[in-house]
Order: sequence, then structure tokens, then C-alpha cells
Amino acid sequence: MSEKGKLIVISGPSGAGKSTIVFKAIEGRTDFCFSTSVTTRAPRPGEEDGREYFFIDRERYDQMVADGELLEHAEYVNNGYGTPRAYVEQKLAEGMNVVLDIEVQGARQVHESVPDAVMIFIIPPSMEELRRRLIRRGTDSMEAIEGRLMRARQEYAEAEIYDYLIVNEDADVAASEFSAIVKAEHLRTRDRLYLLK
Amino acid sequence: MSEKGKLIVISGPSGAGKSTIVFKAIEGRTDFCFSTSVTTRAPRPGEEDGREYFFIDRERYDQMVADGELLEHAEYVNNGYGTPRAYVEQKLAEGMNVVLDIEVQGARQVHESVPDAVMIFIIPPSMEELRRRLIRRGTDSMEAIEGRLMRARQEYAEAEIYDYLIVNEDADVAASEFSAIVKAEHLRTRDRLYLLK
Repeated sequence: MSEKGKLIVISGPSGAGKSTIVFKAIEGRTDFCFSTSVTTRAPRPGEEDGREYFFIDRERYDQMVADGELLEHAEYVNNGYGTPRAYVEQKLAEGMNVVLDIEVQGARQVHESVPDAVMIFIIPPSMEELRRRLIRRGTDSMEAIEGRLMRARQEYAEAEIYDYLIVNEDADVAASEFSAIVKAEHLRTRDRLYLLK
Repeated sequence: MSEKGKLIVISGPSGAGKSTIVFKAIEGRTDFCFSTSVTTRAPRPGEEDGREYFFIDRERYDQMVADGELLEHAEYVNNGYGTPRAYVEQKLAEGMNVVLDIEVQGARQVHESVPDAVMIFIIPPSMEELRRRLIRRGTDSMEAIEGRLMRARQEYAEAEIYDYLIVNEDADVAASEFSAIVKAEHLRTRDRLYLLK
């Protein structure tokens, strides 16, 4: 009997290691996929429509928002970003777990429209460690790094809406924690009442 | 930093394999213990006070019930059985996970007095398989077995109060599911808010 997949929302500061953890956890597994967002921003060199994003124009985007076709959406730097509801629902119906890597603002919307979404917040061991990781990564100016740290602190203040909190001190440990959460969530009685008939 | 342990309630029909699963899951781990119940029944040959049960007289038992010293209690065949609250709370405070193997009636009481108890219902793959296991075990008359099956069906009808449902088809798989649940429950944001300070 094929069960429905789980919608798994992950959030946390840039530099917390979200992607590393999830990739480690789902390596070799065929029951996981990532959601692909739509965006109104132009593709960057090397980006492919349907891979990094579905690139759509503002008119189509606004229509999707108006028609409730986005599970969550938000604006950054004058561009719209959102998660197409139909794609996610289809994958869940096929039994796939769908991973959604989004910010707190979008997570809050998903939390409201999909009450049984599994909400996971991933943080580094400390703000000092986060600063070190961002410096080591070398893609941001010091000013941008301070901005990211400030934003992380703001996100922490809203993290109570997440069901689970993973501290990424060791990526293997954190990946095993992610896996345990997903495994446990598939054992929820409310999803398995048919087994009691 | 030592975190508080989790109170883990397991229930399910006799013959579902509850003990086997839990013993497999906690083998070699020092962060788990079983709760020891009090009872008013007389010790059977080979039973030791404080090991199988704490054996107490009816007067003491009634006093514990009256004083709210039992997390849950129930009567079977004119004897009282109950879980001493102080013992459980001390172990949880020490960071131990305390496993409570009790019937649905007691589980309902625990669910009310310890809202963050982790409630797990364990069932065999089918009623037919349960009947086969009980016959193979050879400790019950056919009449007693039919009684157990009827009781199991009654318990199933109340299983919605449990957070998780494990089907014991393969004891190793079921044990890994038990472990995943406990691991996930230790990652609950509400218990880890201090990490966001």
C-alpha cells in the first residue's frame, strides 16, 4: 500500500548547511524530491527553466497568486518567488516526500495551508560559528555577512512555529536526525488509521 | 547540556511483540529505563520486590491513589496496579527516557497528566497473525486467545489517542521505527528553545 508523501519544510540561516544535510539524508533514495519554485526574476547564466526555477513573467505570477496556485509566495528585491501548489500535491499523492527550502515568511504560509507539513528549523552550533562559515565560504562581503547574521537572529525569534530544531554541528549526525524525523512522521497514527480497521 | 528524558508509553495487544521491539531498540543504551509499577497482588514465586513490581498492601495503594502519587492506575482481578509518579519524574529529570508498557486505560490517564508523553501503539500485521502468534506461544487456552483477540479489537478502536502506530511485521524494522520516533521527539523545538537564545 502506497502512503502519501510528506511535505517537509526546512528553514534556517544561510550557512547553516541545510542543503548538505538534506542531500546526505536523501542520497540514493527515490522517495524524496525537491520542490521547484517559480520566480519572476530573469534566469542567470547557466540556469535552466524547470531546474533552478520555473521562470515566469509578472503577469502569470500575479495570476497564480490571485488564483491560489502558490502554496507560499514572497517578494525579494522586486521579484516574486513562490511554490506551485499543483506540483507539490501531485508529488505527495505519488508517495514522494517533497522538501521545501524556504524562508520563515513562506514557511508560515505553508504551516497554515498544509497543517501536517513537517517543519524543521536548522541552525549552526552558534552565531560565531555561522560567522566563521560565511567568511570561509568567501562569497559575501563583511557587510553582507553582518546582514545575514542580523537576519538569522530575526529568524530565530520566529522559530517556534517549527516542529523540530536541528543543530548542524556534524553534518552526518544532523542528516541522521533529519532522516529520523521523516521516518517518525510517516508513523503518525492519524495517517495510518486504515491499519486499525 | 543534559536534556530531560522522554516518557514513552507503549501499548498494544498481548502478542504484538512490544517487549521484543523495545529491548532490541534500547540494547546497550544507558539513556533508557523501564518504569516499575506498584501492585497489591501477592508476588509470584521468583518475583522480587522492586524488580517485577513494587509489592504494596491495599491501604498503601489506596493512599497513593488518593494523594495523586500514581501517574496512572487500574484494577485487574481485584488487584490494583499503578505507576509511581515520583520514580518516573526523577528518572526523566536525570535525562533518562522512561518506557511505560501499559494498557489503553492507563495510557489515557498518562496522556492527560503528561501531555508531552510520547504515545506509541504497537500492533501485529493482522488479527490472523496475532492469533497464530498466541497459539504458537502456547501459554493460553483457545478460549483465552479468543478473549485476547476481542480485547485487541476493542483497544484498536481507542488507538487514536496514540501519536504513533508501529506495525510489527519484522522486529528489526519495528525497533528501528521505535528508535526513530524517540530520536525525533528529542528534536522538538518546544523542548530546545534555549538553543535559540
